[in-house]
Amino acid sequence: MAQLPSPKALVPFVSVENMMRLVHRIGLETVLKELTDVIEADFRRWESFDKTPRVASHSREGVIELMPTSDGEIYSFKYVNGHPKNMARGLQTVTAFGLLAEVSTGYPVLLTEMTILTALRTAATSAMAARHLAPKGARTMAMIGNGAQAEFQALAMKAVLGIEHVRLYDIDPQAIAKAVINLSGSGLMVTPCTSPQAAIEGAEIITTCTADKQYATILTDNMVGAGVHINAIGGDCPGKTELHRDILLRADTFVEYPPQTRIEGEIQQMDPDYAVTELWKVVTGEAKGRSGARQITLFDSVGFAIEDFSALRYVRDRVSATSFYQELDIIADPDEPRDLFGMLQRAKA
Amino acid sequence: MAQLPSPKALVPFVSVENMMRLVHRIGLETVLKELTDVIEADFRRWESFDKTPRVASHSREGVIELMPTSDGEIYSFKYVNGHPKNMARGLQTVTAFGLLAEVSTGYPVLLTEMTILTALRTAATSAMAARHLAPKGARTMAMIGNGAQAEFQALAMKAVLGIEHVRLYDIDPQAIAKAVINLSGSGLMVTPCTSPQAAIEGAEIITTCTADKQYATILTDNMVGAGVHINAIGGDCPGKTELHRDILLRADTFVEYPPQTRIEGEIQQMDPDYAVTELWKVVTGEAKGRSGARQITLFDSVGFAIEDFSALRYVRDRVSATSFYQELDIIADPDEPRDLFGMLQRAKA
Repeated sequence: MAQLPSPKALVPFVSVENMMRLVHRIGLETVLKELTDVIEADFRRWESFDKTPRVASHSREGVIELMPTSDGEIYSFKYVNGHPKNMARGLQTVTAFGLLAEVSTGYPVLLTEMTILTALRTAATSAMAARHLAPKGARTMAMIGNGAQAEFQALAMKAVLGIEHVRLYDIDPQAIAKAVINLSGSGLMVTPCTSPQAAIEGAEIITTCTADKQYATILTDNMVGAGVHINAIGGDCPGKTELHRDILLRADTFVEYPPQTRIEGEIQQMDPDYAVTELWKVVTGEAKGRSGARQITLFDSVGFAIEDFSALRYVRDRVSATSFYQELDIIADPDEPRDLFGMLQRAKA
Repeated sequence: MAQLPSPKALVPFVSVENMMRLVHRIGLETVLKELTDVIEADFRRWESFDKTPRVASHSREGVIELMPTSDGEIYSFKYVNGHPKNMARGLQTVTAFGLLAEVSTGYPVLLTEMTILTALRTAATSAMAARHLAPKGARTMAMIGNGAQAEFQALAMKAVLGIEHVRLYDIDPQAIAKAVINLSGSGLMVTPCTSPQAAIEGAEIITTCTADKQYATILTDNMVGAGVHINAIGGDCPGKTELHRDILLRADTFVEYPPQTRIEGEIQQMDPDYAVTELWKVVTGEAKGRSGARQITLFDSVGFAIEDFSALRYVRDRVSATSFYQELDIIADPDEPRDLFGMLQRAKA
């Protein structure tokens, strides 16, 4: 028999089941608040990260992406897909998993599901942006697109900004009904609406999160009043947008990583030098966030690797004192590092 | 309690332990031969793959790389590190794991260790290249660098080409001694040597596989006689080469994917338009392989994503009828795909 692998060779793995246990152990709103803070802390040290647009493999049905980053000590990457037609087949549009590794050795130190974690970190990133960009004292948000991310978005805005009222709209009434049920008992006042126009009535924050892989116009210019903050999540892929370009012309646009957002975000509709502000500069105070009561702010969110890095590190910290992980024998570990062959041969016995 | 995940949500995972069992069930030389054939079959349809240079994150200590590819039906990627100083710490220089996913849904269908599998596929790729480039009837190989890959290289040349004699050299006598022991009983005649010059004496195939992250000169021009095939594996990273450039000037150079090899291979020493032949064109017959008895052929091997794709598909096919895998709960799978939040909330109970 082969020897038992050494601890170096075992990588902690957080399954979907264990991720759910971890979230409930900490409490969902607490997780969203803490994630918002760890993401903000990493945006504050933005310049210490290696940054690259994600590596996308496009097909007719969707996209598979790898999202790596590193702060020089820790390396992370996420595998994530986006397949809008999956839903009709009973599958998730977005599934993901991710990994942390030590830069100094290249050895993985955490493997985890990230379908749930991506929903949490996307909501936390929205809340972090809204903390800097939404009108002070905002209490009402519109949630347009009531798919898998919708409730996470609403709860993060409640937990971090104190949003009290969410107005829901989706082209599919069943999706609205699902979100209404899921958010009952959350402490939010929930209003299902029959049109996007109705949903955004009185909302200081408008979040769009739809999934079609096409140029769509979820919001048109005449629907958007002065002073609101728009959180545009669904336009996150070449050929996939949600807002009419006239809205962009009236708004000040904030982005994560311009080289990626110009390919994937709402601003793919604009010239390559269209003026945007990097969100991390707002966080550090180098750039202005909201500057007036009538200003329209737009967070053209596509999701960036540093947010996953933050979320992965958070899970690593929080899971370590629990039993919510298992050890995976994924790294070969011969007694003598050059003796990989000998390890294999000894396993024959 | 949450429901049990559906089969869609469970991803087969092959641990190090199970990979070793699978290799021994099939037989090591059979695995090497079959891998050589599946890699050659995929080289034959090279044009059907999405190709991109791997995404590398460099640090002082080493490199972490992601290597994706797709044939339009199946997507694969490998995570692999290269940390030459790891050995001194009792760690592997190279560790790896990889994944296959369906392009149509983005859902993973296999996760596996690839430290052992990378050694196997690298040896099989060398054998595949040598089948087209080495002098006919070659019976002796020199193996310079007797680290973790050495025995795999020797056995693949035996299994695929009928090599009978391997001459070993390493700067560390302990590495040579390890390889001698591991190859005893393999059916190969094994000769430990005290210098690179001695090792290449009479060898028709010279394989270099050293690990220093620097410009090194393992072979100089005057050491290399006419008619040999050189299989250069260790020069696989910017700033990391093994051959003196004068050897390249006398040899015909064959590569996997030129945009990657020009960055990482021996030819990083040459001009950006230095003439090379793509190995896949030799496999299909579009380009000439060995053309004469005095020609020096050089396979400037760096490792390309398609080789991992082939190896991953092979493991998927071969493991499916065995019990050498476990099911990982890594994909969140709500009953209703938009109800990720509901799945999370129901798990609270």
